Amino acid sequence: MSEYRRDPVTDRWVIIAPDRAQRPREMTFDDEDRLESEYCPFCPGHESATPPSIVDFPKDSDHWDVRIVPNKYPAVRSDADDPGSPSPLFERRAGLGTHEVVVESPRHVVSLTDLEADQLERVVGSWRSRLAELAEDTRLEYALLFKNQGARAGATVEHAHSQLMALPMVPTFLEAELQGSRRYFDRHERCVFCDLAEHNLDSGDRLVYANDAVVAFAPFASRFPFELWVTPRGHAAEFQATGSTTNAAIADALGAVLDRLHQALDDPPYNMAVHTAPLRAGPLEHFHWHIEIIPALSNQAGFEWGSGWHINSTPPESAAAHLRKIATDTY
Amino acid sequence: MSEYRRDPVTDRWVIIAPDRAQRPREMTFDDEDRLESEYCPFCPGHESATPPSIVDFPKDSDHWDVRIVPNKYPAVRSDADDPGSPSPLFERRAGLGTHEVVVESPRHVVSLTDLEADQLERVVGSWRSRLAELAEDTRLEYALLFKNQGARAGATVEHAHSQLMALPMVPTFLEAELQGSRRYFDRHERCVFCDLAEHNLDSGDRLVYANDAVVAFAPFASRFPFELWVTPRGHAAEFQATGSTTNAAIADALGAVLDRLHQALDDPPYNMAVHTAPLRAGPLEHFHWHIEIIPALSNQAGFEWGSGWHINSTPPESAAAHLRKIATDTY
Repeated sequence: MSEYRRDPVTDRWVIIAPDRAQRPREMTFDDEDRLESEYCPFCPGHESATPPSIVDFPKDSDHWDVRIVPNKYPAVRSDADDPGSPSPLFERRAGLGTHEVVVESPRHVVSLTDLEADQLERVVGSWRSRLAELAEDTRLEYALLFKNQGARAGATVEHAHSQLMALPMVPTFLEAELQGSRRYFDRHERCVFCDLAEHNLDSGDRLVYANDAVVAFAPFASRFPFELWVTPRGHAAEFQATGSTTNAAIADALGAVLDRLHQALDDPPYNMAVHTAPLRAGPLEHFHWHIEIIPALSNQAGFEWGSGWHINSTPPESAAAHLRKIATDTY
Repeated sequence: MSEYRRDPVTDRWVIIAPDRAQRPREMTFDDEDRLESEYCPFCPGHESATPPSIVDFPKDSDHWDVRIVPNKYPAVRSDADDPGSPSPLFERRAGLGTHEVVVESPRHVVSLTDLEADQLERVVGSWRSRLAELAEDTRLEYALLFKNQGARAGATVEHAHSQLMALPMVPTFLEAELQGSRRYFDRHERCVFCDLAEHNLDSGDRLVYANDAVVAFAPFASRFPFELWVTPRGHAAEFQATGSTTNAAIADALGAVLDRLHQALDDPPYNMAVHTAPLRAGPLEHFHWHIEIIPALSNQAGFEWGSGWHINSTPPESAAAHLRKIATDTY
């Protein structure tokens, strides 16, 4: 059974999840970072290899395009017991939460770049739909949607999938963004993400792609080579709030940048995370959802672990210029 | 030329260092994560392969036991020009600082665990001596001493070495520790690290090793399997302040835990960082230096990049129990 523990110095939470150590490595990977699998638990016909679906899309149909299932080796659980805190120095909490897997295609594809545009749009729609459902559970404060692409980025199953963890507290990075964007708003009476979207569309030296509703750019203070942010042009705090930005526009921009990354870096492993407002936070004027994409090209080393800062050898202006030159068939 | 850039949302700094991309990989590594080198730039007789020494130990001798040289591909430089900030949204600063390499042995050893106890003591002494010298440069606010052991942990040269980067600002993680330990002190009128040292000596379930002056333990909220902290039993904010804890006591505890890690995990790659007070901070009653050791066993993945939290499948109590059982020849 897992638990949250708070570091007594920094107040940083970790999840201690011994059950995760038991999880089999469902595949190994070869020299080219291609996962090698004998049996795919996410292919149609193998539904019994996972726990029963939480929701299938389309709903009430005899087939599925996108399937959301409980993680077989969850880091957190909805029925977690309170472990009690042994002392004020050592605060512990029940490993409460949900840990779900989004199977992104009924075909055995290994990457979002293998999806047709309309399927990627369905994936985006299923992400948003499930986030909206999770917001109804008032024990949960935050839902983190993320993706590990490639074994070197932490994937243990090859078939294209993302993960959704709903948590009883707002994670550190989100708290820092909420506080930082609040400071910026108090100073400038503007959302910093709105300003970043506008600046990138105007100046263009870090711009990678834009459509009518969504913009993708290499951030000014990129921590990693080819780090990319994807964000709506109009203000929107909640990723799941479908009013302002269509699934198609998000899928188009996401597909466009992932396709370019795929070509530029020869199918790189990467991590992707949606940064969105806390559940039920309502309309926040200072915070704006965005997707962060981090190619897993370099090791986190002693400097980074010691400082929390990053050394990046690729200026974002160079990365963006390189990606802008790439033409794609679909986008 | 490198520069610091501040993220406009979170105020987090990064170092953009394009020159680092030019650095040759001085070696490749084989399947066992052993670095393969044809020519070692850190062996005696090859001193011309590095820039001239900053300081050799012992000083004023015809041989060296420990050598400190400028990094050939520095991420920061003492003669950096101010790049100017293009706008309030995009703050940039000169890539000021020093980036040095500590060659830890005149023999071609690949790990601190290959050193005799008296040589490890000399390494600790050279670290502290150089930190004290760097504190005299008032342009610098912090000195980060760290080590990347093994290629998978980011090492690019095999011969045992550590790195020292002196920076014009206090890094994020240290700022968080300074603030957190200040909060704890304000509440309890005690240093949180003094309390942690005492608790671990008393209760023992996360204790790994202790001598008269230094204690090593697996922290309660370990982010990584077999994460270890090494800290003095008596209060001391500055690693370089030699009054309270001898080099021999630090070397003994460090050697003891690294030896046990080496045996328990079959020579794992790891990162190590000394967390010490900002330069010239004077005696701080709430903060206490410590060394953090992080075996590079698992990938940082989407959950970690998205949240800033970590999922750890090995409880620190299990890691510590395992390490306590290991006997070593030297320690």
